[in-house]
Amino acid sequence: MSNQITAAFYRGDHRFSVETIDAAPPAKGEVAVRIAYCGICGTDMHVFHGNMDARIGFERVIGHEMSGTIDAVGAGVEGFAKGQKVVVRPLDHCGDCPACDAGHQHICHNLKFLGLDTHGAFQEIWTVPAHTIHTLPDDMRLDHAALIEPVAVACHDVRLSGLAKGEDAVIIGGGPIGVLVAAVARAAGGNVIISEVNENRLAIAAKMGFDTVNPTKDDLVETIQKRTGNKGADVVFEVSGSQPGVDAMTAVAAVRARIVMVAIHAQKPQIDMFQFFWRELELKGARVYEPQDYDKAIQLVAGGEIDAETIITDVAPLADIQKAFEALDASPTALKSLIKVGA
Amino acid sequence: MSNQITAAFYRGDHRFSVETIDAAPPAKGEVAVRIAYCGICGTDMHVFHGNMDARIGFERVIGHEMSGTIDAVGAGVEGFAKGQKVVVRPLDHCGDCPACDAGHQHICHNLKFLGLDTHGAFQEIWTVPAHTIHTLPDDMRLDHAALIEPVAVACHDVRLSGLAKGEDAVIIGGGPIGVLVAAVARAAGGNVIISEVNENRLAIAAKMGFDTVNPTKDDLVETIQKRTGNKGADVVFEVSGSQPGVDAMTAVAAVRARIVMVAIHAQKPQIDMFQFFWRELELKGARVYEPQDYDKAIQLVAGGEIDAETIITDVAPLADIQKAFEALDASPTALKSLIKVGA
Repeated sequence: MSNQITAAFYRGDHRFSVETIDAAPPAKGEVAVRIAYCGICGTDMHVFHGNMDARIGFERVIGHEMSGTIDAVGAGVEGFAKGQKVVVRPLDHCGDCPACDAGHQHICHNLKFLGLDTHGAFQEIWTVPAHTIHTLPDDMRLDHAALIEPVAVACHDVRLSGLAKGEDAVIIGGGPIGVLVAAVARAAGGNVIISEVNENRLAIAAKMGFDTVNPTKDDLVETIQKRTGNKGADVVFEVSGSQPGVDAMTAVAAVRARIVMVAIHAQKPQIDMFQFFWRELELKGARVYEPQDYDKAIQLVAGGEIDAETIITDVAPLADIQKAFEALDASPTALKSLIKVGA
Repeated sequence: MSNQITAAFYRGDHRFSVETIDAAPPAKGEVAVRIAYCGICGTDMHVFHGNMDARIGFERVIGHEMSGTIDAVGAGVEGFAKGQKVVVRPLDHCGDCPACDAGHQHICHNLKFLGLDTHGAFQEIWTVPAHTIHTLPDDMRLDHAALIEPVAVACHDVRLSGLAKGEDAVIIGGGPIGVLVAAVARAAGGNVIISEVNENRLAIAAKMGFDTVNPTKDDLVETIQKRTGNKGADVVFEVSGSQPGVDAMTAVAAVRARIVMVAIHAQKPQIDMFQFFWRELELKGARVYEPQDYDKAIQLVAGGEIDAETIITDVAPLADIQKAFEALDASPTALKSLIKVGA
């Protein structure tokens, strides 16, 4: 008995093709998830632009910011019921490297990122290892639940920063991840300010209730010093991926501040190591998430701490994925676009 | 009654003048220390080269890597006996800035470094705030005790790294501070290897019993990967202050490794931020020391864990300070030169 589903394949050079394929039943230890929604991640946009062709190839279904329901389970999998709402933490570790040995499975030396190194969620049924599943509250909206993966990134960043209630936090870069880091930092009790140069993004951040500064208009360091009684920021999140961003991250930092490197810097930026010495600054790289970050993200989205209605700016059906990527790529105001995969 | 002493003044442009001056008695809250020995720090060499004239001026007695005995105490100072062996932790904080408020007095916004921002220990009697004094065991050799200040730097670095027994540590740069960091890391139970390009320094490190690698001859990353079962170093100390050093610090690091920035990078080096993200690396700036680092340094020097006889390569009387700086500046093999200040 064949089980035909619709899937969107990345075919190279800004092109997706939406095709009908046979879905394989879940193998031993696997779960088949019926996808409801899947957001377009910045990484997916990198794929679209052809920047990851060597890793992805041209036979790949991508997508990982998803929500869905259990469709079927493979042999040996217990504890799930068909129709149960779930999200997938899209990381598969090897279990046999120094990182896994040390308990850092999320940065496994041989990590597979589901939806990049394997097929992903821009298809009606996605089959994944059972250990990647997190169940959701029954009453959670599945469009909002598609934000859990990026919110979990923000939860990981904020957890690694050690941000405590009442501390001053500066988020450098107010894009989709920046505003989520800001929201999670605010939920943790931080006094949050977002530095962003794009006026559209500043408007969205303000709509979400955040203090903002445009460092091309106002002096960022002076603003932060004034705001903190000449102390500086206790925690800084560098989300801009730019040289001015890394210049700012040391300039606004208090003594013993913790700086979290959220952005992916493909080039090696110049970093003010003297300030690291002088103020005993701390820099922490943060990559993806661990299970507890997913638990926290589910809690925050379920509790309404994430302004999903403002963050989700577009929803398009899977059949229109090509247009959705093109529109997001061209839009100055879009923040998070979801693909509605399910019927 | 005048109390005449000999003092060496930095007069600019590689010149010291040894002069006879009147020593003022200790003021309220101060202690007068009769100096036995004072080592020449890398910072003192920067002064000698004229690199710090704007900060130091030309009327300054420098020197801070000292040992001595209590000579007299000012009003309100208790608990010291004349002749008692001591060292000075040469930091004076303001007590009224955000760093002091947070308990980080050693990185006070208005920190005075005694022997740079005030007169120092290249004089027979040095008067300092009483809170800077650490007493020594009666049987400690005062030449060895002159190493306590740089050993305290190393103790601070190793403490901030969180190095645990059995962890793999790479020290990048095997100069005077590098070998002390290596010695303190070894005393903490670390598996230590020193990377250094200078063959004279490699020979000294080997004499002190350290494994070494010359990265211009052997592949450093391959060496560390082989040595650690493809894990990488748990802790890295960047003591070289060079671009190849910061390139190496990320390249040799294990996932979640802690990198301590010991060197002072006057220029902004390019740092591989992608590796910070990818392996969730942590970078910590470390500056001077806190009281507990002095306590630890005294304990290590007293316990013979620091090979003082190998590290101290020269001793010269205060009258010959000019020659001693010139000799150290020109020597390819000198590690630590002491000035014998007392009779």
